[in-house]
Amino acid sequence: MASQKTTQPATIDCAYVADLHAELRYQRPLVHNITNYVVMSLSANVLLALGASPAMVHAVEEVEDFVSISAALVVNIGTLSPTWVDGMQRAAARAVAMGKPWVLDPVGCGATAYRTGVAAELAAQQPTIIRGNASEILSLAGAAAAGGKGVDSTADSDAAVSAASALAKRTGAVVAVTGAIDYVTDGQQVVCIEGGAELMTLSTGLGCALSASVAAFAAIAPPLQAASAALAVYGAAGRHAARGGKGPGHLPADLCDALYSMDRERLENNSAIRTRALA
Amino acid sequence: MASQKTTQPATIDCAYVADLHAELRYQRPLVHNITNYVVMSLSANVLLALGASPAMVHAVEEVEDFVSISAALVVNIGTLSPTWVDGMQRAAARAVAMGKPWVLDPVGCGATAYRTGVAAELAAQQPTIIRGNASEILSLAGAAAAGGKGVDSTADSDAAVSAASALAKRTGAVVAVTGAIDYVTDGQQVVCIEGGAELMTLSTGLGCALSASVAAFAAIAPPLQAASAALAVYGAAGRHAARGGKGPGHLPADLCDALYSMDRERLENNSAIRTRALA
Amino acid sequence: MASQKTTQPATIDCAYVADLHAELRYQRPLVHNITNYVVMSLSANVLLALGASPAMVHAVEEVEDFVSISAALVVNIGTLSPTWVDGMQRAAARAVAMGKPWVLDPVGCGATAYRTGVAAELAAQQPTIIRGNASEILSLAGAAAAGGKGVDSTADSDAAVSAASALAKRTGAVVAVTGAIDYVTDGQQVVCIEGGAELMTLSTGLGCALSASVAAFAAIAPPLQAASAALAVYGAAGRHAARGGKGPGHLPADLCDALYSMDRERLENNSAIRTRALA
Repeated sequence: MASQKTTQPATIDCAYVADLHAELRYQRPLVHNITNYVVMSLSANVLLALGASPAMVHAVEEVEDFVSISAALVVNIGTLSPTWVDGMQRAAARAVAMGKPWVLDPVGCGATAYRTGVAAELAAQQPTIIRGNASEILSLAGAAAAGGKGVDSTADSDAAVSAASALAKRTGAVVAVTGAIDYVTDGQQVVCIEGGAELMTLSTGLGCALSASVAAFAAIAPPLQAASAALAVYGAAGRHAARGGKGPGHLPADLCDALYSMDRERLENNSAIRTRALA
Repeated sequence: MASQKTTQPATIDCAYVADLHAELRYQRPLVHNITNYVVMSLSANVLLALGASPAMVHAVEEVEDFVSISAALVVNIGTLSPTWVDGMQRAAARAVAMGKPWVLDPVGCGATAYRTGVAAELAAQQPTIIRGNASEILSLAGAAAAGGKGVDSTADSDAAVSAASALAKRTGAVVAVTGAIDYVTDGQQVVCIEGGAELMTLSTGLGCALSASVAAFAAIAPPLQAASAALAVYGAAGRHAARGGKGPGHLPADLCDALYSMDRERLENNSAIRTRALA
Repeated sequence: MASQKTTQPATIDCAYVADLHAELRYQRPLVHNITNYVVMSLSANVLLALGASPAMVHAVEEVEDFVSISAALVVNIGTLSPTWVDGMQRAAARAVAMGKPWVLDPVGCGATAYRTGVAAELAAQQPTIIRGNASEILSLAGAAAAGGKGVDSTADSDAAVSAASALAKRTGAVVAVTGAIDYVTDGQQVVCIEGGAELMTLSTGLGCALSASVAAFAAIAPPLQAASAALAVYGAAGRHAARGGKGPGHLPADLCDALYSMDRERLENNSAIRTRALA
């Protein structure tokens, strides 16, 4: 699998994603989460169901040590406060210094000046991947009139592709914009992923747990591939879970079960992946 | 719907409540939660299932800005600490200054001196609605011998109606006391709501998530109506969920699904609302 | 039941454990939790399903007062930070001063120097019971090369029995090491408990919620008996839930329902308890 860290595959398709998922389950990477209070439990359960090993560690007294033993880091600013931001920044710096991938989820960027400022500072710390909804990515990219309303997006994800591309070029990160259709870009090409379900917007924290999943894949694959694979697997699991489930209340548990039992056939039946070059 | 903000309807019945719920789903108000760690995820899921848009924001650096873009605020002191109390007080002050409704849930009031003091301070900040169990309301109203035992109530809710009325008169808030039977009072009249299920006391945080639901209705209706509607919808969903469910473990998810699929018929089958004047 | 606090029963078997569980449900002890953000909701739900009354209180301003009204305390360092550690230490000291049982869960001990140091300090505060996985107990006992990887154990629990015994002798605590087989020791005898299921390692926080359950039993029985009973009941519930359930996503809710409906017959069908003297 080491060769995948340096070689770009010609195509990112379901067969490739299924192979990456098998590799993830084999390696069981330790994913260090500095995330918000709302989604800690869900993120941990999603990572376990996916095949990774989660840990939640935020104190400045130990975040750097914990990055040292982890395979990837995810930083999510959902319920931020200054003490936590200190821990986020130190952890990100350590990850960069050690060459470990780290994922930024700029939750609610654009909703308040404080939040937007913290997101911008973290985006300047060389994240490997940034994952957000369209409002968040538009705001982080500096687009005017992002129209963010709380933490739910009010913009379509396809409207944010050009902003994502600009953000990718400026930060060096791969940027994933998720919504009805997901887009992943490194500023040169864009991967479009269809999957998921409308019902997923009615259970809290599914986007945040997705960012944690992106970090898990980033531990074993290059950024564009990792983000695309995570979105494809997660979207397929969500679509499968929403179709067979009882409603939004049971969806998080159904999603975990769908991740746990995911295989290539289910992936192909619930996901579509296309890649194109950006103009 | 604007007329309902100034006009008191002659009766609060299931038909009226169903109309309010439809309006809530249409407006999808952004509800700002400053709540305890235990129930953040549940409160967010309950609000989403009900039809509102939840956000959890507590840092003093941004609570005031977030109140500005929200339709209602709920403050819950379940896992309080001084830094969080600062955020709660600033948020409440801003809500009052902007004329936005805010709901106080004085979790565990009476259990420790610190907790009782914080609850009293917040109650003095003109909450729109206060929602608690009988022990909490008795304690907050200054009644002696509230007999609080942790965060579960040891007093019957009907025993707390007179305390609730006194508290309503002193604070200007509508006060909701929930238990086997729920009571909502503005100090002049009292709305009695029957619904819910004994099983609901065996899943954590259902009272806290109810307070968040009260805030959602407060965004679209006057306080007495909002609190009554929230209690009726929530109690009906809980009763429906408890009847069809597997046990207390699955009840939170079952409750969310029942809220999501709530309609007037189910409301009428699982709820009884009566209004009377106080002596 | 008071006699059980001073008299060691000749045997700890399923019949005895079922009696203790009945007593727990009768007394409904208030369990004070200072635990990590990830598992607060699950711990509360597990305690409620088991028959106890949970509360989560961490602020230094009130932890001592809350210990005073509680029947037992559990301290879990999963998402520790200095402010929380202050609260943990004060609460533990108050519990010891009042002769109330307190349980230490040294989550992730060995993963970082900070975490290991805090765990060691707390272990020196006369915990009644310490519960951890093999890596954590080996680390806390000072064993070299514990091989901890994050918060999941990489050592077998039986390999940790001698370390547990040494830790028990040094701290005066009963030590429980949980894994594929669970061991409880006071340094003189060891109780082996078989139950549980492999699937339980794929839902987050089940070990943490188990520690809370240990505290609930410690409120009504001597330490060796309490820890053994909690592990037996919990393992039986987990095995029952895993067998009948859909996957790791639904397992936490299934576990709570299994605890709620636990009886002696199910306990006997899903648990095996053996006691032997240590060399």
